[in-house]
Amino acid sequence: MNTIGHLINSKVVTTSDRIQDVYNPSTGEVAGKLSLASKATVEEAVAAAQAAYPAWRNTPPSKRASIMFRFKELLEQHASEICRLVGQEHGKIVHDAMGELRRGIENVEYACGAPELLKGDYSKNAGPNIDSWSDFQPLGVVAGITPFNFPVMVPLWMYPMAIVCGNTFVLKPSERDPSSVLFIAELLHEAGLPAGVLNVVNGDKEAVDTLLDDDRVEAVSFVGSTPIAEYIYSRASANGKRCQALGGAKNHAIVMPDADLDNAISALTGAAFGSSGERCMALSVVVAVGDEMADALVSKMKEQMGSLKVGPFSDAKNDFGPVITKAHQEKVCGYISSAEKEGATVVVDGRSVAVSGHENGFYVGGTLIDRVTPDMTCYLEEIFGPVLLVMRVNSMEEAMQLINDHEYGNGTCIFTRDGEAARYFSDNILVGMVGINVPLPVPVSYHSFGGWKRSLFGDLGAYGPDSVRFYTRRKTITQRWPSAGVREGTQFSFPS
Amino acid sequence: MNTIGHLINSKVVTTSDRIQDVYNPSTGEVAGKLSLASKATVEEAVAAAQAAYPAWRNTPPSKRASIMFRFKELLEQHASEICRLVGQEHGKIVHDAMGELRRGIENVEYACGAPELLKGDYSKNAGPNIDSWSDFQPLGVVAGITPFNFPVMVPLWMYPMAIVCGNTFVLKPSERDPSSVLFIAELLHEAGLPAGVLNVVNGDKEAVDTLLDDDRVEAVSFVGSTPIAEYIYSRASANGKRCQALGGAKNHAIVMPDADLDNAISALTGAAFGSSGERCMALSVVVAVGDEMADALVSKMKEQMGSLKVGPFSDAKNDFGPVITKAHQEKVCGYISSAEKEGATVVVDGRSVAVSGHENGFYVGGTLIDRVTPDMTCYLEEIFGPVLLVMRVNSMEEAMQLINDHEYGNGTCIFTRDGEAARYFSDNILVGMVGINVPLPVPVSYHSFGGWKRSLFGDLGAYGPDSVRFYTRRKTITQRWPSAGVREGTQFSFPS
Amino acid sequence: MNTIGHLINSKVVTTSDRIQDVYNPSTGEVAGKLSLASKATVEEAVAAAQAAYPAWRNTPPSKRASIMFRFKELLEQHASEICRLVGQEHGKIVHDAMGELRRGIENVEYACGAPELLKGDYSKNAGPNIDSWSDFQPLGVVAGITPFNFPVMVPLWMYPMAIVCGNTFVLKPSERDPSSVLFIAELLHEAGLPAGVLNVVNGDKEAVDTLLDDDRVEAVSFVGSTPIAEYIYSRASANGKRCQALGGAKNHAIVMPDADLDNAISALTGAAFGSSGERCMALSVVVAVGDEMADALVSKMKEQMGSLKVGPFSDAKNDFGPVITKAHQEKVCGYISSAEKEGATVVVDGRSVAVSGHENGFYVGGTLIDRVTPDMTCYLEEIFGPVLLVMRVNSMEEAMQLINDHEYGNGTCIFTRDGEAARYFSDNILVGMVGINVPLPVPVSYHSFGGWKRSLFGDLGAYGPDSVRFYTRRKTITQRWPSAGVREGTQFSFPS
Amino acid sequence: MNTIGHLINSKVVTTSDRIQDVYNPSTGEVAGKLSLASKATVEEAVAAAQAAYPAWRNTPPSKRASIMFRFKELLEQHASEICRLVGQEHGKIVHDAMGELRRGIENVEYACGAPELLKGDYSKNAGPNIDSWSDFQPLGVVAGITPFNFPVMVPLWMYPMAIVCGNTFVLKPSERDPSSVLFIAELLHEAGLPAGVLNVVNGDKEAVDTLLDDDRVEAVSFVGSTPIAEYIYSRASANGKRCQALGGAKNHAIVMPDADLDNAISALTGAAFGSSGERCMALSVVVAVGDEMADALVSKMKEQMGSLKVGPFSDAKNDFGPVITKAHQEKVCGYISSAEKEGATVVVDGRSVAVSGHENGFYVGGTLIDRVTPDMTCYLEEIFGPVLLVMRVNSMEEAMQLINDHEYGNGTCIFTRDGEAARYFSDNILVGMVGINVPLPVPVSYHSFGGWKRSLFGDLGAYGPDSVRFYTRRKTITQRWPSAGVREGTQFSFPS
Repeated sequence: MNTIGHLINSKVVTTSDRIQDVYNPSTGEVAGKLSLASKATVEEAVAAAQAAYPAWRNTPPSKRASIMFRFKELLEQHASEICRLVGQEHGKIVHDAMGELRRGIENVEYACGAPELLKGDYSKNAGPNIDSWSDFQPLGVVAGITPFNFPVMVPLWMYPMAIVCGNTFVLKPSERDPSSVLFIAELLHEAGLPAGVLNVVNGDKEAVDTLLDDDRVEAVSFVGSTPIAEYIYSRASANGKRCQALGGAKNHAIVMPDADLDNAISALTGAAFGSSGERCMALSVVVAVGDEMADALVSKMKEQMGSLKVGPFSDAKNDFGPVITKAHQEKVCGYISSAEKEGATVVVDGRSVAVSGHENGFYVGGTLIDRVTPDMTCYLEEIFGPVLLVMRVNSMEEAMQLINDHEYGNGTCIFTRDGEAARYFSDNILVGMVGINVPLPVPVSYHSFGGWKRSLFGDLGAYGPDSVRFYTRRKTITQRWPSAGVREGTQFSFPS
Repeated sequence: MNTIGHLINSKVVTTSDRIQDVYNPSTGEVAGKLSLASKATVEEAVAAAQAAYPAWRNTPPSKRASIMFRFKELLEQHASEICRLVGQEHGKIVHDAMGELRRGIENVEYACGAPELLKGDYSKNAGPNIDSWSDFQPLGVVAGITPFNFPVMVPLWMYPMAIVCGNTFVLKPSERDPSSVLFIAELLHEAGLPAGVLNVVNGDKEAVDTLLDDDRVEAVSFVGSTPIAEYIYSRASANGKRCQALGGAKNHAIVMPDADLDNAISALTGAAFGSSGERCMALSVVVAVGDEMADALVSKMKEQMGSLKVGPFSDAKNDFGPVITKAHQEKVCGYISSAEKEGATVVVDGRSVAVSGHENGFYVGGTLIDRVTPDMTCYLEEIFGPVLLVMRVNSMEEAMQLINDHEYGNGTCIFTRDGEAARYFSDNILVGMVGINVPLPVPVSYHSFGGWKRSLFGDLGAYGPDSVRFYTRRKTITQRWPSAGVREGTQFSFPS
Repeated sequence: MNTIGHLINSKVVTTSDRIQDVYNPSTGEVAGKLSLASKATVEEAVAAAQAAYPAWRNTPPSKRASIMFRFKELLEQHASEICRLVGQEHGKIVHDAMGELRRGIENVEYACGAPELLKGDYSKNAGPNIDSWSDFQPLGVVAGITPFNFPVMVPLWMYPMAIVCGNTFVLKPSERDPSSVLFIAELLHEAGLPAGVLNVVNGDKEAVDTLLDDDRVEAVSFVGSTPIAEYIYSRASANGKRCQALGGAKNHAIVMPDADLDNAISALTGAAFGSSGERCMALSVVVAVGDEMADALVSKMKEQMGSLKVGPFSDAKNDFGPVITKAHQEKVCGYISSAEKEGATVVVDGRSVAVSGHENGFYVGGTLIDRVTPDMTCYLEEIFGPVLLVMRVNSMEEAMQLINDHEYGNGTCIFTRDGEAARYFSDNILVGMVGINVPLPVPVSYHSFGGWKRSLFGDLGAYGPDSVRFYTRRKTITQRWPSAGVREGTQFSFPS
Repeated sequence: MNTIGHLINSKVVTTSDRIQDVYNPSTGEVAGKLSLASKATVEEAVAAAQAAYPAWRNTPPSKRASIMFRFKELLEQHASEICRLVGQEHGKIVHDAMGELRRGIENVEYACGAPELLKGDYSKNAGPNIDSWSDFQPLGVVAGITPFNFPVMVPLWMYPMAIVCGNTFVLKPSERDPSSVLFIAELLHEAGLPAGVLNVVNGDKEAVDTLLDDDRVEAVSFVGSTPIAEYIYSRASANGKRCQALGGAKNHAIVMPDADLDNAISALTGAAFGSSGERCMALSVVVAVGDEMADALVSKMKEQMGSLKVGPFSDAKNDFGPVITKAHQEKVCGYISSAEKEGATVVVDGRSVAVSGHENGFYVGGTLIDRVTPDMTCYLEEIFGPVLLVMRVNSMEEAMQLINDHEYGNGTCIFTRDGEAARYFSDNILVGMVGINVPLPVPVSYHSFGGWKRSLFGDLGAYGPDSVRFYTRRKTITQRWPSAGVREGTQFSFPS
């Protein structure tokens, strides 16, 4: 079993740093050994990024974009291999990994448009014979710290745009599933990226803190849980860095009495249980308006969940796989138990799911809990598991109040046919990403991703137009030329 | 020798239409037979485009763009073959053809950004609870009519953007060099384009007039000479079509006394003689400010031209190849003779150039004519050959007056180090594309191409942002919802 | 009774040109005498505009905008006087004139944002050390030709933006109601506009043709009927001018079975009869889906129309006033009669309306015609009077087919509560301005106005962002500087 | 002598809070008494802002903008009175106050364009029948904390845009010169602003900390010195608020050997001594390239400074007035003395300037110090007085290194005629606002203001396009409608 190393200055580096196990959650067995970067190793990566910066910054955006075009081709060519690496260490089924990769590639595609996206504004005659324009310049070395749940997609939210804007990058991916990240980083070098422009270090808090404290790092992008996001944001900010830190979520769907229920059920199932609910955009709470709708919804959902298949990543017929670790499996089951204790009704119980042949895998079955109330632990905290809570309210206003009162404000959606209800909801809900009959309203790559409230710390969202602004710094030039220069001088020198 | 046909509804069609020879200008021999489309054949292509339109229009822009990404890959993979086809029928040397292809591919790359480029503006609360937004919808079937001098690039200015915006297309390329066009069109189908979305018909005035008169064609893009551009524009407009028609040019470079002369000479040589001057952005007139500069410039240019190599397309060591036809060869030589007769000084004479082994090729050598005046035929008309005219003026104002008085306003440039002179020039010159120490100021693919005065008929330029507007029609939606709908109704049904 | 003259170079000019009567349609009496400009007078105005151009073009956009800010203030201060002048010559009631003025002022407000709107795109490193940017430069002298029905608003669609972009302007307003136009033009001068930047000539075809043929006029904006729009567009285009020509309309409203009928009726009444239906965005056809809805709609509409008040402009209690001329009154009544003859049911008949005390005024009462079919004259042509046609269909598709088959494509709307129906309608209808429960979907001033099909000739709409593009010409500058200049030279001169 | 109070909920509030003197720096006498807000008073203001928020947020942007149009009119009408209030408490001469007011009004003008600036992006068919758009929603209650040096302009950088975007505002201006702020706030209410939308509290650290800690405040804009900016930024960020904090500066001008020296001297004089150098964009260091240039510059500058007039604000013939306080006067003189001690040459000494009749005013005369080196205290710190330092270098690279090494990166400029030098400078200098022959490159109101390095904490600049993003939060809506709705239902109900 090889030790997984770092990628610094285009070379794989394995150091005598601390070593940690990487698991295959589908079997519960150790799948690899990972070298955790020391401060020195991280600083080496930062130094490589800094050294590569001047030349990369001066490379025309169109040249930088041409590497992204080739990167996209290579990602598509190696899709199966990438998905296998993801499945092995993360546990997600191939169709799910493929979906993740596809969303990741879309961010690379968006980065291909850098020459258009980097255009500044030009004003002739801002004053008499004075012109003024803006230039969006790269920041320098920037860092990304990414979570286990989307090992492919979330890094691709960050470094393609950061790099195409002229920055150099140090990525610290999750230590749970590092292999696909490294594989993809090598593809980017194959696509023509110069050494040092992208560096990957595996590690834990030591690596993170080194990145947060190193003066050469100009900005940090983070995706993870809210407590860590808050820590990252405050430490990076205090160190004078630009920072965006995306945290947790508790995404509610409102089902209105006029909703197309079959459509809603089908949408909710995928959104609640896909990827075992380990998505910051997973739908974890459904709010039914009216008991009639609630009863119908619970009954149909229960029926539909009968056919949900949980099992190892390697079997494409499974709907979802294990959760990421043993500890997390226990935590998710703990939430279900707490709900039961606090008075909710566990309609479908995934705690004792058995996956034959994979008894040591970290599985939790799809779970449906009815009659959840706002004070329950399972409602207040993010579960990050295949657990869907049902809440019952008597009006749309009551449903919206629930959502607006929650600590998080990442995603939400409503199921209705009514134009007015949809418009009122999207206008007044205090959530950054809103779906109308769309259960997972993850913005497409040419819009931007960003929650509200304690789901995002920072001014600008991830990917899309916002990321261009995050990874560049505005410079405004104001220019006039002294008169009586060469132009008129010439006239005197050569009279007609 | 096969007859070159049409590409209609994804199938090659050879009809019993009239047949015309296609030449290899490097040898002067016939290289192929071309079927000239009848009215019926053109109408068949239009019908195919119309049939393909509804499904294509409803395909999401990101899906349409994904075909452009694959198209770009295929163009790069088949670059050599494309350049060979271009060289054979057009005569340009491989490095020149490669440059043309590269610029063409950049337009495909820009089309890959369609999802970003097609965004409309959204205004919430344009009035109380009233929202308003714009949608840029495709036009339907659009046509392109393209010239011989850039058989690869100019069609790629048009149909990638037209298609990615949701239109379907009928292209009528030049009948002089059709093979690369058809080859490339097949690559686009290999990339996944549905049948009927792009159709190619070869032909002459009959094909053109059919496209101009067919009610199903919503818009026409044309690039060619000014008299034809004017004809196309007026006939298409009279038939209620949207039209943009790009015509001829006479591009001047001003050389100021403070210019970096070596740099200017080197830049001018490529810009004047590259592709035998058969470019609408070729620099055909250099205006020297002051006799001192003029003398130095003529002397250095003459020296530099000593090493210019003209010869067959197949030899990569040549600087440029033949002109397109025997007739055109004679026309260019006629302009040189007229200049001589009208009193100009032929400093370097390309009329009797001999290319050993290719005596029947349509060659004209690089030609430099000094002391040209504004009333000479060679100045008033577009020569479209490897002929550089030198004019002498005593001030920058005089040089600018020359340019502003000319019928054409395509491109121009100035050589200077002085910020003020450059700014005054670019502000006040009546030309659409302006270079500062850049001899061929062809805008990059993410800006737009467009001359002024009689160099362009129409409101919007080719490629870049303008082409998005040309190939779409603005629709503005204003929306409010009646109150007391499902939202409040619900509240009454389920009181708390 | 004074003769109304022209405003040329900031001075009122009365010439011995032909004289024509201006009527007060509320009384049927002559209200003024108008001097119709000869070719020479128009040419004088063009010359004034041309002379004013160079200085105005070089005035910074922010300075030009500051005049628009003051213009807005003056328009608001003189609102009552303007509305009185409009009412007197056009016949519209003061509340209607005030609405028109308000929409006009909004266009002035938008023009105040010129410095933002004129920003070009700037690309650093379009190539190595090569920068490229676009500049939207004014065209020169531009002309506007405007209709009688919005004597205040339509000119304000045009010249504020044209002027703030740096053009100078010649306006030929309608000869039916010229006084408010002249009054407003003087306010603009009071606001600080230099002489010659805006000129107003009153006239007829002679004036129009002079503007269309004069080489110094670079562009023409027109609003009027479709036959004239077509004439203007083809003649201006043939003369090498940029042109946008807005023509007629036949605006349909679909009422779906789920519509809020009370709301729809109220909306339709204003949209059909306001300003006597003399608006290119008037709703003239209502298409009821299902006989049940049709019966309810006709019955309620008939009831509602009982309280409609028609009468002289001077009485603010009137809902609408007379039509513009005696001839037009007869034409409108003729359409009603033809409908009757062709088999439709005249439910409410406005032909013999009597306005006591104003028996010679040009009045037509509100008219409702049911069971209109697509072949009837009243349906095929634009009536431009207070006449609402009702058509009955059995499905939404059938309703949409009607609209898509009509020659015009200006505005349309649908009344429904259903999100899906609204979205399908707005996506697929071949009309440029679409309302969802909004009967008059005239875009707000910061969007653009433009119909489809034979309702607009030209590529770009009126006012809003489109007008910035219409009134400017793109220039693209590409710049690099020779190396080894002052910067490095300095280093050698002063070694450390 | 009245006590100056607060403006809360549109009413002037004077509390029994602590009282502090406000001085007239021109005379050194007390000019007023100021009530310093307690925590409770600030919370009252926040509560007023919060109460006003819901209705204001739902007011259409065009309505909100219409108040800005009227506000601009009133500011212009009351310009003299505003400038008198500024002069009295700040000391700046009327022409300088007028300039400040003019720049402030330009920000109001930009806010008038809110309907254009708030447009979101709309994507039809982001997926099959799925639309997606962005909406820039207001944040809620936001706060501004502003410095003494631009009592009119800096608040107008903030609240007009914040308010027009739909936020409500609490402003804490400088306690040194509060009167003009309050006067202007009342004008905004006269313009139609509803009560509670803008509130002004005077105060010190207690007020600031209350704003930073109150959970109802969503965002904070600050302009002041770097240490305070850093404090504000970290405390606001830690409290989960959006923050932008603009700090100090040390703005360098490079004078190249080819510069137009007369022009440079004239530009530098105004930029160094205007407003006594109490501007964050003041030019405080001139870097001469080459001793020849340095000698000429020092000699001409000394001569020019002979005619500089310092004196009371009330005399328009003065070039600049006193500094803000006795303490600051002593601090500035201390810097001059330190320079002398550390080895620099005080060429013109303003320490003992005498203003006859105003002996107790806080005056410092224009001061020129030559041969300053990078280690001197006067160079390392921001002086904020009428003191210009001269540094001598041997190359442009050396000059740029100085600038890039300095802690601050607000503004800078270069004097040259050479295009290449200008371009290299603007590209590579680590400063946010760059002038080419423009000594004070303050961006115009439709661009954005922002320094780099320790001159700005936060991602987005002040005013202009950046401020629209700062004062709004992106929301992305993704929408599809269930099929088989009203549209098709209708078809079945009413078969044809």
